[in-house]
Amino acid sequence: MTGGFTGKFLRIDLTSGKITTENTNMKWARDYIGGQGLATRYYVDEADPKIDPYSPDNPMIMAPGPLTGTNAPTAARYMIVTKSPLTGTITRSNSGGYFGAKLKHTGFDMIIFTGKSPKPVYLFVDDGKVEIRDASDLWGKDVFETTDLLNERIGGNISVACIGPAGENLVKIASVVNEKHRAAGRNGVGAVMASKNLKAVVVTKGKMPTIAEPEKYRVVLPKMLKKIKENPVTSQGLTQFGTEVLTNIINRSGIYSEKNATVSGDDPIADEVSGETLAETYLLRNQPCFACPIGCGRVTTLNGRESEGPEYESTWSLGPNTGVHDLYTIISANDNADRLGYDTISAGQTMSCAMELYENGKIPDKDVGPTKPKFGNTSAVLEMSETLAYRRGFGNILAEGSKRLAEKYGSPESSMSVKGQELAAYDPRGVWGMALEYATSNIGGSHMRAYTISNEILGVEPVSEPTKFEGKAALVKYVQDFTEVMDCSGLCQFPSFALNLDDYLDLINAVTGFDYTKDEIMKAAERVWNMERLFNLKAGIKPEEDRLPERYIKNGIPKGPNKGKTVPLDALLKDYYHERGWDERGYPKEETLKNLDLGFYKL
Amino acid sequence: MTGGFTGKFLRIDLTSGKITTENTNMKWARDYIGGQGLATRYYVDEADPKIDPYSPDNPMIMAPGPLTGTNAPTAARYMIVTKSPLTGTITRSNSGGYFGAKLKHTGFDMIIFTGKSPKPVYLFVDDGKVEIRDASDLWGKDVFETTDLLNERIGGNISVACIGPAGENLVKIASVVNEKHRAAGRNGVGAVMASKNLKAVVVTKGKMPTIAEPEKYRVVLPKMLKKIKENPVTSQGLTQFGTEVLTNIINRSGIYSEKNATVSGDDPIADEVSGETLAETYLLRNQPCFACPIGCGRVTTLNGRESEGPEYESTWSLGPNTGVHDLYTIISANDNADRLGYDTISAGQTMSCAMELYENGKIPDKDVGPTKPKFGNTSAVLEMSETLAYRRGFGNILAEGSKRLAEKYGSPESSMSVKGQELAAYDPRGVWGMALEYATSNIGGSHMRAYTISNEILGVEPVSEPTKFEGKAALVKYVQDFTEVMDCSGLCQFPSFALNLDDYLDLINAVTGFDYTKDEIMKAAERVWNMERLFNLKAGIKPEEDRLPERYIKNGIPKGPNKGKTVPLDALLKDYYHERGWDERGYPKEETLKNLDLGFYKL
Repeated sequence: MTGGFTGKFLRIDLTSGKITTENTNMKWARDYIGGQGLATRYYVDEADPKIDPYSPDNPMIMAPGPLTGTNAPTAARYMIVTKSPLTGTITRSNSGGYFGAKLKHTGFDMIIFTGKSPKPVYLFVDDGKVEIRDASDLWGKDVFETTDLLNERIGGNISVACIGPAGENLVKIASVVNEKHRAAGRNGVGAVMASKNLKAVVVTKGKMPTIAEPEKYRVVLPKMLKKIKENPVTSQGLTQFGTEVLTNIINRSGIYSEKNATVSGDDPIADEVSGETLAETYLLRNQPCFACPIGCGRVTTLNGRESEGPEYESTWSLGPNTGVHDLYTIISANDNADRLGYDTISAGQTMSCAMELYENGKIPDKDVGPTKPKFGNTSAVLEMSETLAYRRGFGNILAEGSKRLAEKYGSPESSMSVKGQELAAYDPRGVWGMALEYATSNIGGSHMRAYTISNEILGVEPVSEPTKFEGKAALVKYVQDFTEVMDCSGLCQFPSFALNLDDYLDLINAVTGFDYTKDEIMKAAERVWNMERLFNLKAGIKPEEDRLPERYIKNGIPKGPNKGKTVPLDALLKDYYHERGWDERGYPKEETLKNLDLGFYKL
Repeated sequence: MTGGFTGKFLRIDLTSGKITTENTNMKWARDYIGGQGLATRYYVDEADPKIDPYSPDNPMIMAPGPLTGTNAPTAARYMIVTKSPLTGTITRSNSGGYFGAKLKHTGFDMIIFTGKSPKPVYLFVDDGKVEIRDASDLWGKDVFETTDLLNERIGGNISVACIGPAGENLVKIASVVNEKHRAAGRNGVGAVMASKNLKAVVVTKGKMPTIAEPEKYRVVLPKMLKKIKENPVTSQGLTQFGTEVLTNIINRSGIYSEKNATVSGDDPIADEVSGETLAETYLLRNQPCFACPIGCGRVTTLNGRESEGPEYESTWSLGPNTGVHDLYTIISANDNADRLGYDTISAGQTMSCAMELYENGKIPDKDVGPTKPKFGNTSAVLEMSETLAYRRGFGNILAEGSKRLAEKYGSPESSMSVKGQELAAYDPRGVWGMALEYATSNIGGSHMRAYTISNEILGVEPVSEPTKFEGKAALVKYVQDFTEVMDCSGLCQFPSFALNLDDYLDLINAVTGFDYTKDEIMKAAERVWNMERLFNLKAGIKPEEDRLPERYIKNGIPKGPNKGKTVPLDALLKDYYHERGWDERGYPKEETLKNLDLGFYKL
């Protein structure tokens, strides 16, 4: 028997209000692992790659993984698969918390939204009952208000994923936020949801998924938990200090940049915003996601009430990256991102881009208003953290993301983005796996399709010297595919500090009964990766966009342990394309596609 | 005939929900000028001076003046008369905007609220129709939300005066805010309103008041308007730069203090927060009150939306007084004060008191949380501007005002208050009229019962050297009584830069038909002043509380044109008591009371 799937999914046509239940294609499920992979298979089957992301015909799929909602460690994730208005790529944006597990418990393997509702609505799914409900009076409300109102009206143990004003205003970095502080943050998926007049999805009580091989599961599960509890990162570092534990580690590694990557290599006051400092100041307690033994989530105090976060990437992006080392400002801006519904990494990077442009005289005073976007100006960060969500004044330009901002002011090189999406908190000049990951991620600049920091900085096997060329491309390919396995499964990536591919495989096989070999599951992962690549190529995104901001290629890191280093991107890419079985220009070879059973989808 | 009054007022018993219309005692109206004076007469008639301000038996009176709602220049003011939870004195807290005029247009000379509603309610008054309506779902909402919701529900041309979370939480410096940004700010009247479960008062369409002598009025009115248009303060300074025009003037006069009056006399960067700087940065446009030809109100931009203010006193109190010279922070904190409903002067002074105490090691770290209240910390100002309204954490201590804060931490001398109310933006060591006004105001530390700055700094007749002893007490008595005339009338004090007592008298006589002589009206004003004094004495507030914070008496101003100066308070008070016809201890003499026809109310 099969577990982890019910074999049914929901299709919601928002234009007509029609709700249908369809049978899940279980061959696709196995071939694409489920979750994000399965959703991607359905997505490419239904969407023209050239489609306008805001077209009613652009499907938006919410998909938990086969393991999501089980009690496997960290089985909390769900994905949104659609086409991104920020990058024009296919996207998959990922969130934890409780929404994904409850979505899974509804008994549907995923929800495919198509069309556009004539008025604002929310979807309500309660143990088999599915309703499209009026949300006219919720439109305009922020994430906190929307979540509170739906909880108040519906009551019980519900979970709300919704958009805020940023989504409604089609801000290109808008997020979909669940439980107020967990976000499918990247790639502007909140704006796609808004374009469908879909304000929220509410899920409530339901059933735990079936486990295909319960006896195997009962052996595998405690083994995984033991490994997680014995690993210092997953049992201590992340638990005690959250993702913010990285601040001092990354800074000491010489890849912590400041001020839109104009300063890098050694931030003498990074500790002012570190997880250790947070733990001594604003931290109230941990907030674990569903089924998580790690509990990296932070509940912090803000103006005497509770907020959550900030995560490491958010802290860096809204903080030192904008020249700000004030935790209050960072927590406030991070809270605004959750409340108004947008991505913290892209927001901070867009602010820092604006600051560089302004300080270089590229942005005239009349465009920015009274609070000048200068590095280190906490007031500017707070102001921009509001205006961008509402597209007010200069916020209307920030709402487009850093790439369009930098192009508008004639300095495209000032946007720290790849394919239009802003990069995360690692200077790639000192960590070449991340350089390659940034350049080749199918959703534009992302650190989460292959978190090679684990292997290059944090000592996770296979270990790789951060700036050693040999084997780097192979590492990145391997980690990308392994990550695809993790992401499709519905587990978080954090257990991978303690668990290896075999462990994930054992869990997936026990739950699904798919009985994958290691080669089979990695091939499935590779299949998803290549399918995304093909979609992007069909969408018109050429391999020439596998680039990095030029300062990472031309200018050496100014100080610290990696002083002088740059990214040898062309050589890395050549090697990577080869590892991927792509031609020298970056197009998948016919034999590669055939080998992956993707012949049907070739260019 | 009589004008400016209808001869009817409303009595609202919130306990029973009973609404009655009573006839106005017109003898009292003339004897106490109307408005605040008349309300005070009714108040002392009904309230035991020893009453708990939060007792249902403590009446709260909303009173426009006889001129309010006419088209006389600045005829926009209304007063709240009750007993203050901050000072324990009788109080009158004053606001402009449109609410006062619309309240007058309802046809009621005032509204006396007594009792306590069993649930949250608001009062709705629409051209003769009076209803007590449920406000359960408005309780907990902030001022902006409450105002928006009532406007949305009721529609039309209404005006809302309401309390915010600060009032609901019985914050001792809570205000009653009308039109979102105009506040009866001082003395905690918002907490008294909250103690009655009265969330808001809504007034709507109605009639202009009757003018007793329209022919005289038609002569007097254009004369007043001409004077206002010809005076540089009322036609240019206040119009162009708002009350914030004072920043540079007061700073140049050597009476602008910083950091809880630990620094004073010359702020080299005061211009960073001046009206001139505001006009070049955050100012969008003017916002005049009803019937106002001056238009000192500022509409400013905050996070891309509109806010109002900040006024001069607010800017100083939340800004340089806390060591902050950042307009964004000041505008944000000022906006929080309007949104959450509390007084800006007392709030900033309470924050600065906390900063002094914290920097001196009087407040332990555990009491204040992660954002440390240090001078110049913009984050601390922003945080405290939220927490105090909700009584969260350290905000629960701030909510009590600076006097109780300083006493709690064993440094009563660190509270810049008189009788428990925080002082305004003038260092009294360099302006002795203000010293005496602060010390003797019947509502505790106030600059608005006698704005002698006009005479001592701004050249308004009668001019008085700021630190010349001779004639100072007489000046303060005169200005206090003249101010009483202005305040009772319902006009703003700002025309007095251009108009003198004769002008106000002509307007009042034309509107009311009371045919006052100058002596008669000044005697009426003095009657109100002495009645308040008697109430306070009966309430247990001894003349010994006519004091100033000791640093103003013991420590000379450290720098600037007034370097070394202190306040000779005892001598000033002796002279003042004599001018008032009070004995040397500060008690009104029997003959004085008899002369004022106050024999009935003696101690």
